[in-house]
Amino acid sequence: MKAAQFFGARDVRVQDVPKPEPKENEALVAIEWCGICGSDLHEYLLGPLIIPRKERPHPLTGEYLPTTLGHEFCGRIVSAPNGSNLSPGQPVMVDPRIYCSNCSRCNETSTNACASWGFKGYSGSGGGFSELIAIDVKLCYPLPHSVDLTLAALIEPLAVAWHAVELAGVTDWSCTSVLILGGGPVGIAHIYVLRAKGCKQIFVSEPTSTRAAQNKELANQVLNPIKEKIGDRCREFTSGEGVDVVFDCAGIQKGMDAGMDALRYKGTYMNVAGWETPMIVPLMLLMLKELTIKASMAYDDKHFKETVDAFVAGKFSGLEKMVTSRIHIDDISKKGFDELVDNKDHHIKIMVTTHKDKL
Amino acid sequence: MKAAQFFGARDVRVQDVPKPEPKENEALVAIEWCGICGSDLHEYLLGPLIIPRKERPHPLTGEYLPTTLGHEFCGRIVSAPNGSNLSPGQPVMVDPRIYCSNCSRCNETSTNACASWGFKGYSGSGGGFSELIAIDVKLCYPLPHSVDLTLAALIEPLAVAWHAVELAGVTDWSCTSVLILGGGPVGIAHIYVLRAKGCKQIFVSEPTSTRAAQNKELANQVLNPIKEKIGDRCREFTSGEGVDVVFDCAGIQKGMDAGMDALRYKGTYMNVAGWETPMIVPLMLLMLKELTIKASMAYDDKHFKETVDAFVAGKFSGLEKMVTSRIHIDDISKKGFDELVDNKDHHIKIMVTTHKDKL
Repeated sequence: MKAAQFFGARDVRVQDVPKPEPKENEALVAIEWCGICGSDLHEYLLGPLIIPRKERPHPLTGEYLPTTLGHEFCGRIVSAPNGSNLSPGQPVMVDPRIYCSNCSRCNETSTNACASWGFKGYSGSGGGFSELIAIDVKLCYPLPHSVDLTLAALIEPLAVAWHAVELAGVTDWSCTSVLILGGGPVGIAHIYVLRAKGCKQIFVSEPTSTRAAQNKELANQVLNPIKEKIGDRCREFTSGEGVDVVFDCAGIQKGMDAGMDALRYKGTYMNVAGWETPMIVPLMLLMLKELTIKASMAYDDKHFKETVDAFVAGKFSGLEKMVTSRIHIDDISKKGFDELVDNKDHHIKIMVTTHKDKL
Repeated sequence: MKAAQFFGARDVRVQDVPKPEPKENEALVAIEWCGICGSDLHEYLLGPLIIPRKERPHPLTGEYLPTTLGHEFCGRIVSAPNGSNLSPGQPVMVDPRIYCSNCSRCNETSTNACASWGFKGYSGSGGGFSELIAIDVKLCYPLPHSVDLTLAALIEPLAVAWHAVELAGVTDWSCTSVLILGGGPVGIAHIYVLRAKGCKQIFVSEPTSTRAAQNKELANQVLNPIKEKIGDRCREFTSGEGVDVVFDCAGIQKGMDAGMDALRYKGTYMNVAGWETPMIVPLMLLMLKELTIKASMAYDDKHFKETVDAFVAGKFSGLEKMVTSRIHIDDISKKGFDELVDNKDHHIKIMVTTHKDKL
């Protein structure tokens, strides 16, 4: 079967690989759509980063590069173990995580922080940019036949945002003000989740005009950090107090400095971004305002399920705006990765399929 | 009357100043003992830092240097307004904070984060290194006549620790493990507070042998960060998981790196220290363990009162070990500030009085 595999930086090859053979607890899933994630792009440009090298195979899969890429995927059941509630043709969203189920963190239901964490699409045992994958039935979430599977694959990035939003520890989002740093795909996923949770005050700091235009349709205000003082503008919108929560989806120092300034007393700064430079905390702001800094890591079982449920319930209205291109797997390097490098700001999410008839 | 005033770095002068004239809401307090704080030493060496300069007087007192130093003080009532519950001779601990009572933070009872915060002993309107001070009656906490006022002045640094410990958000300290970075006066104050709250597992990271010896009498384990890997040792003591909470009373990068490593999944890093270098967050640890970073700022009314109550109830057992020297105000530069510069690690707290008969 076809699969897009990572061999090294800027070296992704679509090639023929053996079909997966499901174990006793696994269903065989025919993948329909898989999104390209910012982390995939990171691997494409600078990898292997998360993808294991030969010297250090993944502790659970035992695999190393080349591995199949893609972890934001959904599809339909081909076969499933007897006794499961899955039957052929059933549309499913897949939780792509790999975890041991034995360590102390897995035992505390924090499977996202498993000592041996990994992902289908990075760590071996298949990935979403392929025709078929074998998946533990407990990680297959049945979807109604009516759902649009192009959009269902967005559940994965939405679950990342859902987890971060939950970790912020807010009990009532309807009276909570939020600043999002960076209006890219991760920032936009946060807007959808926050709206689903009833948040009414969402401000986005985004310097590029194309991204700003995308965000203007979703957020209350889109601010330009080059032209405006973000903290002052946020205080204008919040009776002089500052915002309750900042989600850092940018990972740059100037963003953090502005975000910490924009927070109200006792506010929370949630980092969701990877950083390429050191994260230096503006200490006087941290101390004088007694702020809290947190970070989130993927999502756990509960938050993935909640995101699936919210998607099925139609809570993410207007989600179709997130998909800016649909491509065939044969074009993944040129129309997928290279396109995201060359025209980054024009895209939110590019979806990939092996099915020519779906395009 | 005599008062020790700050004129500039290494220039503290004991001189004659006018006696304070209490306002309608103020009691006149004869100060008995006042401790020298690390922040006082900071001002002595590098100031003015918090102390206002002529160009920018304190917004509430309108004063600027020279101001009287000392904010860890207690004494006895000389006179009090009619209708207050204070009568002459009554021993009192003083909350030395200055706040406006009008801003949004004061209205939320977070007077410690008042937009115009200040302290007696830095910001004008008197300080603890003097004979008399006028204090709002609501900031005077009556103490039983039986208490040792040399030790009562320690309530102020204990309140700083109390507030930080409360902010860590732990519901049951008896099953919580703690690592304290830095075994100086602030770190030691945290040990007393944590013990008062029932904490049974306290580890201290402290590189100097004199400080280590002081801490060994109080903590479960004192670790040497030069010779030992703090994270590994903490995991040894905690079934491989790491500690629940770190209190950073050191403010150095190597300490933070070790402390973040020593934390368990979902642990809390509470910064109580001032830093002289940038605080760089070990991001991978923050994200993979979903840690929380917090910071505390002085204390609020509730936590000051709780600390007074705990002191009166005898909850800080062995507190007399904290006072390593008692001196007269005339000797404050030489036997106080210079002694702390030259023999820093040998002292925990130096107490100052204007009363020769108390020595």
